[in-house]
Amino acid sequence: MNNMEIIDDIKYDAQGLVPAITQDIYSKEVLMVAYMNKEALQKTLETGNVHYYSRSRQKLWLKGETSGHFQKVKEISFDCDLDAILIQVEQIGAACHTGNRTCFYRSLKNNELVEKEAKDQNQDKFEVLQQI
Amino acid sequence: MNNMEIIDDIKYDAQGLVPAITQDIYSKEVLMVAYMNKEALQKTLETGNVHYYSRSRQKLWLKGETSGHFQKVKEISFDCDLDAILIQVEQIGAACHTGNRTCFYRSLKNNELVEKEAKDQNQDKFEVLQQI
Repeated sequence: MNNMEIIDDIKYDAQGLVPAITQDIYSKEVLMVAYMNKEALQKTLETGNVHYYSRSRQKLWLKGETSGHFQKVKEISFDCDLDAILIQVEQIGAACHTGNRTCFYRSLKNNELVEKEAKDQNQDKFEVLQQI
Repeated sequence: MNNMEIIDDIKYDAQGLVPAITQDIYSKEVLMVAYMNKEALQKTLETGNVHYYSRSRQKLWLKGETSGHFQKVKEISFDCDLDAILIQVEQIGAACHTGNRTCFYRSLKNNELVEKEAKDQNQDKFEVLQQI
């Protein structure tokens, strides 16, 4: 199955979209979830820069086009049902439009939604070291 | 914002669903993407075991109910738009119905879709060590 075949074999939903999860290749942090249509996946594979389909603006969206916060593709994986895409990227700047590194910057703690402490990549690595 | 408020504040789609990404708390591997409705999120928060809404079976789905491959909730995060959920879990057994640890077991290599080599958690940690 080559690049062009995978583009056709993906199971897009009724709107022609498939969820794409972006993960930092270094820290393994999940950065965001957005959607791709066939054109966005094709452009992503062709250029090595992640493209999504913006549901609000209803158009192709090169991530970083205005912010400079590009996502450089390092690895693209597909799930068992071919209805979700996982992209490991080198994230330039912040993935989130709020300025946070990840869109998932809030989590539940003691039944309250709180912002996570900012971490840099080295802190992630040190946490792994401590587990060993 | 407490647990009950977050359940109501999530932006479910027209089908009443929100994508939920499950990540291994230890290896940081993304395991699967599935969907939750309000009831699934509520049950997940109440029980500490991940519940989804099965779109094919159109019913609440306790992950591991038949396979024993439960997902124990360790942390739940929400994205900036409150339209996606990230759950860090302790995964019992395999997340994927194919028997693979993760549903994302295939990636593009040289334009071909190939199965990734199986990795154990320690291998992930050693890879991080090599980056330091």
